[in-house]
Amino acid sequence: MTRTKEGFQYIKATGQLTQGFECEGAVSPASSFRSVASSHFDLIVIGAGYAGLVAARDATLSGLSVLLLEARDRVGGRTWTAKDSESEIFEMGGTWVHPQQGFVWRELHRYGIDRDIKITPNEDYPSHAVNVTRRKGVEYRQGFAENFDMLDAALARFMDIDVARSVVPFPPHILDSIASDPLLVAKYDKMSVADRVREVEAAALLTEQELGYIIPFIELSFGALAENCSYLEWIKWYIHGNCSYRLLADMLWVYKLKNGQSHLARKIFDEANSTGRLSYSFENVVQKVIDRPSSTKVVTSRGTFCASRVISTLPLNVASKVEFDPPLSALRLEAFAIGHVNKGHKIHNELMKKEFKSGVWNLADDLPLKRHLAAGFGDQILQNGNSTVVAFGLANDPEEVPSKDPSQIPRWLGNLDKSLEQSYVGSIWHEWIADPFAEGTWAMAPPGFTTKYHKELQTRTGNVLWASADWADGWKGFIDGACEQGGRAAHVVVEEWRAGFGRSKL
Amino acid sequence: MTRTKEGFQYIKATGQLTQGFECEGAVSPASSFRSVASSHFDLIVIGAGYAGLVAARDATLSGLSVLLLEARDRVGGRTWTAKDSESEIFEMGGTWVHPQQGFVWRELHRYGIDRDIKITPNEDYPSHAVNVTRRKGVEYRQGFAENFDMLDAALARFMDIDVARSVVPFPPHILDSIASDPLLVAKYDKMSVADRVREVEAAALLTEQELGYIIPFIELSFGALAENCSYLEWIKWYIHGNCSYRLLADMLWVYKLKNGQSHLARKIFDEANSTGRLSYSFENVVQKVIDRPSSTKVVTSRGTFCASRVISTLPLNVASKVEFDPPLSALRLEAFAIGHVNKGHKIHNELMKKEFKSGVWNLADDLPLKRHLAAGFGDQILQNGNSTVVAFGLANDPEEVPSKDPSQIPRWLGNLDKSLEQSYVGSIWHEWIADPFAEGTWAMAPPGFTTKYHKELQTRTGNVLWASADWADGWKGFIDGACEQGGRAAHVVVEEWRAGFGRSKL
Repeated sequence: MTRTKEGFQYIKATGQLTQGFECEGAVSPASSFRSVASSHFDLIVIGAGYAGLVAARDATLSGLSVLLLEARDRVGGRTWTAKDSESEIFEMGGTWVHPQQGFVWRELHRYGIDRDIKITPNEDYPSHAVNVTRRKGVEYRQGFAENFDMLDAALARFMDIDVARSVVPFPPHILDSIASDPLLVAKYDKMSVADRVREVEAAALLTEQELGYIIPFIELSFGALAENCSYLEWIKWYIHGNCSYRLLADMLWVYKLKNGQSHLARKIFDEANSTGRLSYSFENVVQKVIDRPSSTKVVTSRGTFCASRVISTLPLNVASKVEFDPPLSALRLEAFAIGHVNKGHKIHNELMKKEFKSGVWNLADDLPLKRHLAAGFGDQILQNGNSTVVAFGLANDPEEVPSKDPSQIPRWLGNLDKSLEQSYVGSIWHEWIADPFAEGTWAMAPPGFTTKYHKELQTRTGNVLWASADWADGWKGFIDGACEQGGRAAHVVVEEWRAGFGRSKL
Repeated sequence: MTRTKEGFQYIKATGQLTQGFECEGAVSPASSFRSVASSHFDLIVIGAGYAGLVAARDATLSGLSVLLLEARDRVGGRTWTAKDSESEIFEMGGTWVHPQQGFVWRELHRYGIDRDIKITPNEDYPSHAVNVTRRKGVEYRQGFAENFDMLDAALARFMDIDVARSVVPFPPHILDSIASDPLLVAKYDKMSVADRVREVEAAALLTEQELGYIIPFIELSFGALAENCSYLEWIKWYIHGNCSYRLLADMLWVYKLKNGQSHLARKIFDEANSTGRLSYSFENVVQKVIDRPSSTKVVTSRGTFCASRVISTLPLNVASKVEFDPPLSALRLEAFAIGHVNKGHKIHNELMKKEFKSGVWNLADDLPLKRHLAAGFGDQILQNGNSTVVAFGLANDPEEVPSKDPSQIPRWLGNLDKSLEQSYVGSIWHEWIADPFAEGTWAMAPPGFTTKYHKELQTRTGNVLWASADWADGWKGFIDGACEQGGRAAHVVVEEWRAGFGRSKL
C-alpha cells in the first residue's frame, strides 16, 4: 500500500515521534495526464476531498475531461484512514456515517460496501461502561442506558422542541425553507450556545449534572467553546437528530467503515479514473484562479491549467490563500476571513487496558484544561489486546499542537481520567488546525455567520462553482454534505457542457 | 405535453368517465433505437419506473449501451403525475419524499429541484383541521396538535420502543444487520399487526380511542387489513420514523414535488437519453427472458433483443407473468405467487368546499366499508377554489374497481364523512390493483414473507439482476427504495462491463 506523508505517531516507551502512514488514499505517482485538446479541460476540480472526488467522478462519467488538483499526496481531504505498522487502521478525520446521511449512504450502497460497517461505542466491558463528566468541580458518572435517558430528556428541555422545530422546520433549507420564519432564523443565529446555557441556568431548567453532560456534548460537536457556537447551527443538529439525543448520537459516532474511509474515497477516485477522462495532479498547490468568460486559468505550484469550468472545494478556512481574478466579493472574503470555529484536535490513544473500550469522558468547564482534550471515548480493541480511546480537543491553539511536545498527550488524557494517563502507550493523529490545507476540522459556524454568509458561500462566481461540505445544504460539515455538494456542482457543469460549452472544441 | 392512456377521471355532474391525461412522463414516439453493434446491447433494463430509470441513466452515463423496455406509454411505473384539462396536477401513485429518504433526495438535489417542494397537510382552515376516526361505532375527533401528541405517546406504547429497537436496530439491513438477532427478527415477522393489536388489547395498553387512530394508520400504511400485515415490517417503518408518529408521518405524506413526480422521472430519463447511448421501447411487453452465459435474450411483444446483462425491475406482483429460461428458483416463484399485500385504491376527489383541505378521516373497523375507502385527507386547493381530498382504500377487490361504477365513489367518501359526499364534484385515479403491470401499489409484506423471501428476491440469477423498490434494503416500497435498487444494480453491471464483458465486441 502507498504511503502518505501525513499523520503523526508518538510512542511513549521510545519517545519517538514519526510522520507518515500507509494509506489506501495515497496516490502514486502523483500526476497523470490524459491528452486533451489544446491542454484545455472541460472542468478543473480543486481539491480531492469527498466533494471534489464526487464532482470529478460524476463529471468524468458524464463525458467531461476533468483535471483534479490536490495539494496533498492523497485523496479524502479532511477524511483519511491511516494504517499503522501492525495494520491497525485509524480514522484521522471524518469517520462516522449513517443511513440518514443519504448522500454518503448512497455511495456506500452503490459500491456494495454498506454492510462493511463496524460500531464504535459498546458496553462490552460493563465495569467501564460509564460516561464521566466534571462540572464546577463535581464529577458525575452514569451508565450508558441511564445517561441516554437522562440526556434525551434534558436536551429536550435545553432545546425546547417546539422552538427548535419552528426555527428549523426543514433542515436542508436552513435559512429559507417553505416553512421557515426568516426573523426567527436570524434571531437564533445571533445567539450563541453559551447564551442559551445562560437562559437555561437563569430559568433553572436543568440540573448541574445535566448541564455537565450537555455542554461538553455540544462543545465537542462544534470543536469550539460554547460562546463561539451558533445556537441556530446547534438547533439544526438537533433537528437532524430527530429531536433526540439518542438518535443524534447514533448519527454522530456509531457506524464507521470496516475498511476505512480511505477505502470509499479510493473507490470514487478509481471510478473516475476508470473513465479514461480523469487527469490528476497531487502535491500541487493552487495559487491563483484567473476567471474569464471564455476560459478559466488555474495557476498552481506545478504549472497553469485551463478549463471551461472550475469547481472549487477549497475549505472555508483556507480558501483565502488562493487569489481570484476578478476578486471575489467583499462578503465572501469576509466569510473566509472569519472562517468556521472548529479548531479541535482528534487524537487516537492506545491504552494498556481493554476495558477503556467502553468508557466515555468529558470536561464541562475546566478551562484551560479542556482546550487540550475535552472529551474522549473508547473506539477500538487492537490485536495486541489494548484499547484505543479517541479524544477530542476544542478551541485548540495552532501554536501548541501535540507534535511540538507529544509527551504532553498522556497528561492531557490524565485531565480526563488519571487512569488513562497511567495506561498510556502512544498516539496517532493528524494536526488539522495547523494543516495549511484545512486549518480546522468539520466546519461549524459562529453566531451570525450562517445568516450572513451561507448563501454567498454557495453562490457561483463566473465559471467557478463552489462546492464544499463547509456550506452544504443538508449535513453541513459532514462527509455527507461533501458528497451532496460535489454531486450538485458536477451536475450543473455537466448540464452546461451538454448545452454547448463542450462543443466549441469538437 | 404528451398524453398517457392511463388514469381515470369521473365527473359527477355529467356522469362522464374518461381515460388518459397529459403527463410529463409520457414518451412519444414510443421507440427510439441507437445503432449498436450486432443488435447486442450491453444492458437491457426491464421497466421504466424509478428503479429502471436510475439504472438506465447510471449505466448509460458510464458508457454502456442500454435498451430500456417498458410496457406502459410513460416513465415512472407506479409513480406518475396526471395533468387535467385545468392544468391541475395529481399524483396518481408514489407522491411524497423526505430528506431522510436519501436516494431520492439526492436525485432532487442533484437536479436542483429540491426546493420545488409543496406541503400536503395544513391547518389553513382551523374549523376543519380535525382528525376523525370511528371504532366500534364511536366517532372520535381531535385537533392536529392534540392528535399528534396522543399518537406519539400511544404508538410508543403500541410498539414498545425498546423491543422495536432490538428487533430492527439498523433498518437498511432488516434481516441481518451487525446488531440484529435473527431469532427476534423471525419471531416478529411471523406476527401480524392484528396479533399485536390483540396483545395490546389483552394487556389494556391503549384506549379504544388510541386504537381507533393507530389501526387505520397502520392499515393505510400497508393498504391491507391488519391480519395481513407483517409486524416486523411495521416495526421497520416505526424505526424509519425514528420511533415517533410525528416524524414518521413527516416522511410519509408531507413533502411533495411542486412540478410532480413525473417531472423528476422525466429528468432522469432525459439525462439517460442525452448520453446518446439509450435505446428505448415503450408500450412493449416483456414475455420471456432466455438467459445464457454468453448472452441473454429478452422476448417482447415487439421483438427479441439481446444483451450481456439484464436488470429486471418487474414488480413483485406481476413478475410471474414473464417466463424465465432457465426457470427461476421455486422459492422465488413462491414469493411471486404470494406477492405483497398492498391492494389499496388511491383516489383524488374534488369537493366544493375549500375547508376540506385541512381534514383527515379514518375508519378503524367498519368492515366491509373500509374495503372501499378507509382513510382520506385534504391535499390541494384547486384554482376554482375547491379542495381535493386524497382517499385510500385497503384490501380492495380488483373485480370491484371504481371505473366499473364510478357513481359509487361519492358514497364511499360518504362512509368516511357524509359532508364529503354532499360536496362531491368528481375524481381522478389510477386503478393499480387491476393494472396488469402492477397489481398493487407500494409493496408491503404479509407475515413471514420477509424472513423467507427477501434475500432470494434480491439475488441475481445468471446475467439477470433484480432491482425493485419491492425488495429494497432501506425504504422498501418507496420511490427512495427504487432509486437505491436501480443505482446499485447499474453499478454491479458497470463494474462487470469495465472488467471485460464489454470488450468482446470491440
